[in-house]
Amino acid sequence: MGKEITARSEDYSQWYIDIVKKADLAENSDVRGCMIIKPYGYSIWEKMTQALDKMFKDTGHVNAYFPLFVPKSFLAKEASHVEGFAKECAIVTHYRLKTAADGSIMVDPEAKLEEELIVRPTSETVIWNSYKKWIKSYRDLPILINQWANIVRWEMRTRLFLRTSEFLWQEGHTAHATSAEAMQETRQMLDVYADFVENFMALPVIKGKKSESEKFPGAVDTFCIEAMMQDGKALQAGTSHYLGQNFAKAFDVQFTTPEGKLELVWGTSWGVSTRLIGALIMAHSDDDGLVLPPKLAPIHVVIVPIFKSEAEMNSISPKANQLAAQLRQQGYSVKFDNRDTHKPGFKFAEYELKGVPIRIAIGPRDLESGTVEVARRDTKEKKVIRMDEVAGAIPHLLDEIQANIYQKALKFRKDETTSVDSYDDFKKVLDGKGGFVLAHWDGTAETEAAIKEETKATIRCIPLDAVEENGKCVYSGRPSGKRVLFARAY
Amino acid sequence: MGKEITARSEDYSQWYIDIVKKADLAENSDVRGCMIIKPYGYSIWEKMTQALDKMFKDTGHVNAYFPLFVPKSFLAKEASHVEGFAKECAIVTHYRLKTAADGSIMVDPEAKLEEELIVRPTSETVIWNSYKKWIKSYRDLPILINQWANIVRWEMRTRLFLRTSEFLWQEGHTAHATSAEAMQETRQMLDVYADFVENFMALPVIKGKKSESEKFPGAVDTFCIEAMMQDGKALQAGTSHYLGQNFAKAFDVQFTTPEGKLELVWGTSWGVSTRLIGALIMAHSDDDGLVLPPKLAPIHVVIVPIFKSEAEMNSISPKANQLAAQLRQQGYSVKFDNRDTHKPGFKFAEYELKGVPIRIAIGPRDLESGTVEVARRDTKEKKVIRMDEVAGAIPHLLDEIQANIYQKALKFRKDETTSVDSYDDFKKVLDGKGGFVLAHWDGTAETEAAIKEETKATIRCIPLDAVEENGKCVYSGRPSGKRVLFARAY
Repeated sequence: MGKEITARSEDYSQWYIDIVKKADLAENSDVRGCMIIKPYGYSIWEKMTQALDKMFKDTGHVNAYFPLFVPKSFLAKEASHVEGFAKECAIVTHYRLKTAADGSIMVDPEAKLEEELIVRPTSETVIWNSYKKWIKSYRDLPILINQWANIVRWEMRTRLFLRTSEFLWQEGHTAHATSAEAMQETRQMLDVYADFVENFMALPVIKGKKSESEKFPGAVDTFCIEAMMQDGKALQAGTSHYLGQNFAKAFDVQFTTPEGKLELVWGTSWGVSTRLIGALIMAHSDDDGLVLPPKLAPIHVVIVPIFKSEAEMNSISPKANQLAAQLRQQGYSVKFDNRDTHKPGFKFAEYELKGVPIRIAIGPRDLESGTVEVARRDTKEKKVIRMDEVAGAIPHLLDEIQANIYQKALKFRKDETTSVDSYDDFKKVLDGKGGFVLAHWDGTAETEAAIKEETKATIRCIPLDAVEENGKCVYSGRPSGKRVLFARAY
Repeated sequence: MGKEITARSEDYSQWYIDIVKKADLAENSDVRGCMIIKPYGYSIWEKMTQALDKMFKDTGHVNAYFPLFVPKSFLAKEASHVEGFAKECAIVTHYRLKTAADGSIMVDPEAKLEEELIVRPTSETVIWNSYKKWIKSYRDLPILINQWANIVRWEMRTRLFLRTSEFLWQEGHTAHATSAEAMQETRQMLDVYADFVENFMALPVIKGKKSESEKFPGAVDTFCIEAMMQDGKALQAGTSHYLGQNFAKAFDVQFTTPEGKLELVWGTSWGVSTRLIGALIMAHSDDDGLVLPPKLAPIHVVIVPIFKSEAEMNSISPKANQLAAQLRQQGYSVKFDNRDTHKPGFKFAEYELKGVPIRIAIGPRDLESGTVEVARRDTKEKKVIRMDEVAGAIPHLLDEIQANIYQKALKFRKDETTSVDSYDDFKKVLDGKGGFVLAHWDGTAETEAAIKEETKATIRCIPLDAVEENGKCVYSGRPSGKRVLFARAY
């Protein structure tokens, strides 16, 4: 395994592809646009799903499973929903193959479906069709359901993890008796996502609201968290939608209030996907490979023996195994790489590539002096620690690495965020320094579209913590009450 | 919630449907043949997947994710595979919808795929197509991968959990350097499944090998575990396939041996699905509802307060909460149902329906005497236990329930298994007492087919522990070396 990772400075896109491939995270399949998530990549996703699932359950949600297929007529029920994005999708039209006269396999023309089925691009329609049956009275509310599922949106230009025709995600779909409760849920889940991305992924985010043009088709309001990648581009890391009564209206979902009145139900939906793995890679990794925050690292500590003879290995092994056992007892995932087919240098490079947060090297001289060499992946610092103190030092060191990765990303984002007050400066920053641009906007879709057309920058969000200030739209000069966040984005 | 469960003796099929619906486990969706797994049913599946996933990892397996779609040409590569079962499936032919002239949504005829995609009915072909790229040398072996996924097989007659067009499952796909190692893996996973079904689902199984006619299309040998349902019918609870070099041949997957020779790789695949939930229901439940083995119960203990006034409730609550906290600290899932909208009798019936293993009732008189009433779901026995002893008694009681459910099912299976030596007795048992029939078989597909045609009984398996004995086939009179297991089956 040669490292051969393209430097970020040379070709950022290629650097990303190199890391995904060399760290054995994922690869393109022979099925157009679909990826294969390889075991190491999938183990990161498992860490993510476990943490998120616990957060969802701690906030009162339960999991369920709804059909993969959406009848075509369901999609048509919410007009803006189908207009917005549901056009590029996988469509099932037949349900049987047969053997042709020449022995080849063909689609049986007799087995045509009366109504085509769409492979779910999202499940609002299928789920609200069920909620209609489940909800009669205020006593049936709220419904707080999450689903872990695969999703298909036919993509022409794909990029591993970031944009693929099939991806994995979770989608929350909740139903409430009041608008206020639905809005509270929408905001709560935005906070849950921000908490996860900041505290597990070690990636700072800006919480905000999408503009009308950028919101989810079918939503009244879309809230999002936006993160900055190392090339200064934005990546939407999660969205939480306040659906108002739109889907209740489309599927006629009404409930009886305590007063005996009939009212439409209020809804939300929210999701994050395997895209987060792409964000994780792009935000923290370096030219030597992945850098993983300890909370999502499949392996926390790797122990590499330095030996030239079997005798040396035999004296190192018991110490290494003892240390591994101690660390495992503390709840850490530890790998003792005792292969004799690869040299230590090769192993060092391999675990750097895979982003293992801590590497412990033990050689014959360490045994003599009762020490080990501890190297951290994030800063590449090495320290010699006494053997009998290392197990006690690891928890603190992992916390320090987690915090450092976050602080580094936070500092980068601060450095790469610029407030501008003219359109000239706006374009100058975008084409020069790059990053996030905070600028006044007049609130119109026309201005937004013109800026996007001219600069490829979009309004990532209207930050929730934006300061109220009187300003002028950088494009139109019209009055604006706060700055919004512009950036080029993934 | 009325109970209204049809008695097993009256209509076993309807009893099953009633339990699935009234215990809120699953329902049919408006998408033909696809089910909706409701939160309570899904929480049982989560318990199952957690236990299985740990067992897979403990035996060295890792998870990964492969595409939902299988190109039509992949399926055609392994001839017996496609002939065997892959005909009834969901076929994607188009990738875009469009708005028609009349405003309706239609499939865009311009967006027709060059090659149709099949929604995976199983993933051998997609995975072996990848293994071809991943495997070059003996150093790349073994590959021990499992996938958690949804599967679609177009079914005309469906039954919730037992047979649906879409279902959830896990599929292990392993690759090995030798036949012996692949066979060892096949048998190991059969043992893992038997261990899970017996020790978690409390359901005894018979391990065996399928006959040629019943084996997985594409396998050399299929091993299975067969369980008996309360109507005496068999249910295949899991299968483990020794694939030999069949898929390696079809996808040209070769490796270099240590001696530098090129050889075809050996494979296995193995799976269990949401069907297990159907087995769990059918094996243990009674006319009052679900009976869940504690190891798979989403709620271990429910605490029901018996109160007539708010004052009574206020004196019960602290005791109930204290007990709940004690039990949760021991790792149990506890629900304190303090709703004042439903009477205790209603709650008792509800938790019986949902199969909660232990119910604890606390009323004013209990407070006076310092006791609680503990009722177990499996035997309906009630015991008065001192309040300060109840938390200590629960672990033992749950173990006892788990063991009792298993023993009951084991006794039932023993009682309902009959050895016969003539075809008259064979038919008499099947049409009378029912259950499993152990009989000699001449080993031919013709006899097997004739018996199936005449009696609807199939060879469930050739039990691995079958005693070698000289006998005569009950149908043909030809010699046979051991008895095989016949039954009507789900």
